[in-house]
Amino acid sequence: MLFFTQCFGAVLDLIHLRFQHYKAKRVFSAAGQLVCVVNPTHSLKYAPTRCAAVQASTEQGILPPCHHHEAVHDPQLVPCMCPLFSCPWEGHLEVVVSHLRQTHRINILQGAEIVFLATDMHLPAPTDWIIMHSCLGHQFLLVLRKQEKYEGHPQFFATMMLIGTPTQADNFTYRLELNRNQRRLKWEATPRSILECVDSVISDGDCLVLNTSLAQLFSDNGSLAIGIAITTSKVHSSEAEI
Amino acid sequence: MLFFTQCFGAVLDLIHLRFQHYKAKRVFSAAGQLVCVVNPTHSLKYAPTRCAAVQASTEQGILPPCHHHEAVHDPQLVPCMCPLFSCPWEGHLEVVVSHLRQTHRINILQGAEIVFLATDMHLPAPTDWIIMHSCLGHQFLLVLRKQEKYEGHPQFFATMMLIGTPTQADNFTYRLELNRNQRRLKWEATPRSILECVDSVISDGDCLVLNTSLAQLFSDNGSLAIGIAITTSKVHSSEAEI
Repeated sequence: MLFFTQCFGAVLDLIHLRFQHYKAKRVFSAAGQLVCVVNPTHSLKYAPTRCAAVQASTEQGILPPCHHHEAVHDPQLVPCMCPLFSCPWEGHLEVVVSHLRQTHRINILQGAEIVFLATDMHLPAPTDWIIMHSCLGHQFLLVLRKQEKYEGHPQFFATMMLIGTPTQADNFTYRLELNRNQRRLKWEATPRSILECVDSVISDGDCLVLNTSLAQLFSDNGSLAIGIAITTSKVHSSEAEI
Repeated sequence: MLFFTQCFGAVLDLIHLRFQHYKAKRVFSAAGQLVCVVNPTHSLKYAPTRCAAVQASTEQGILPPCHHHEAVHDPQLVPCMCPLFSCPWEGHLEVVVSHLRQTHRINILQGAEIVFLATDMHLPAPTDWIIMHSCLGHQFLLVLRKQEKYEGHPQFFATMMLIGTPTQADNFTYRLELNRNQRRLKWEATPRSILECVDSVISDGDCLVLNTSLAQLFSDNGSLAIGIAITTSKVHSSEAEI
C-alpha cells in the first residue's frame, strides 16, 4: 500500500514539474501561432533606484555612451530616448534594441503574426507588459500598460511603436486583436515612431483602450492574449472610408 | 441691374432651400451603403417632465396599455420596460417597436449593413443617439451614449440590443466599425436582449467604448460614422480562440 502511495506521489511530482517547466517556458507555439508569454514589469516611473542603477551602468560604459539632446542638430546623430521607465539613457536608433534587451531585459520575437500573452493582469497599476517584435526587416515595440488615468479606475492601453523614424513608421500598419467570450475587438493603426513618447500616445488614448471589466472578459485565468499582425500595405488608408 | 440682383437672390434662395432639403433628409444612400443620419437626443433621465408627458399619453390610451411587473409570472406576458430614458412604459415585446417609434420618435432602417452617422458629437453628456435596425427578420436597437463615467471625462459607449428575448439574441452577432484617419476599430459581440438594461451594459463597459480624443479622430466635421453589420452565424464563437 505504501509503495502505491509513494508511486502516486512520484507521479504527482512529475506532473507538477512538467507544469512548472511549461510555465517557465516563455515562448511556445500553439495552434501554429507563436505565443509569447509576457510577465509584467512594474512601471519604474516611481522607482528612481533602478533608474539610478541604469544610469550608473551607463556611466560605467557597459551600455553605449549617451548622446545629449544637442545631438539633434547633427543630422548624423538621431537622439533616441528610451520610451520606457524613467530611464535617462539616450542613443542612436540602431542601439535602442540592444539597450532594451540588455538593460530592460525585453524579449525579441520573430514573425509576422504572434500572440502576446500578458500574465497577472490583476496586478495593481502602474504595470507594463513589453515585448519587441522583429518583422518585415524592422523591430517594433509592443507596450501594454495598466494605468489609472482616472483615480481608482485602472485601464489597459496597448500600442505598437516602430524602432525607427516617423517616416519609416508610416509604411506599416499594425493590428491588435482580442477574441474571447463571444466578443472580438480589433484595433488597426499606423505604428508611432519610438522617437515619439509612448506616454503621450497613451495619455491621448490614441491606442487600444480597455476598461477593467472588458479586460476580464477577454482574459483567461488572469492572462490576456493579444493577437498581433504587422503589414506593409496601407490598405485601409486607401480604402473608401465609411 | 435690379433684375439681375433679384435673379441672383432667387438662385441663392433655391440653393439654400435645396441644402435644407438634403439636410432634413434623415436617410440617404452613399457609396452603395445605407447611411442614416442620427441626431442627438439629450438623455431624459434628468427631464422628468417629458417622462411625465409620456406617462400621461399612456394613461390616455394613445399607447398600448401598461403591463405591471406582476406580469412576469404569466408566461403569456413578457414584461418589457423601455430601456431608454426614464420612461415608465411597459408592454409586450411585440409592441416595443411601435412604442419607440411613436413615443420616442426613433427611426427604423432596413438592411443587413448600414452606416449610423451620429451628428453633433460635441454636445455635452449625457446625450444619446438611437436608431432601430430591422434585419434578418428581427429588430435591433443601436444606442450610442455620451456619458461621464468619470466626472469631467465624457466617453462614448455604443451597443446593440435585440428587441427580443436573450435566447433569440444568442443567435446573432453584431459588428460596429469605425474607420478614419488611418485607424480602424472593430467591435463584435452577441447583442443583448432589450429585456436587459442598456444602462447596465454601458456601466459595465461591455460594449464599444471610445474616449473623447479617439472619437474626435474617428469623426468628421462633428459627425461619427459607425458601420453596422448583423449576422446570424456564430462564426467567431466556433473559431479557435487566439
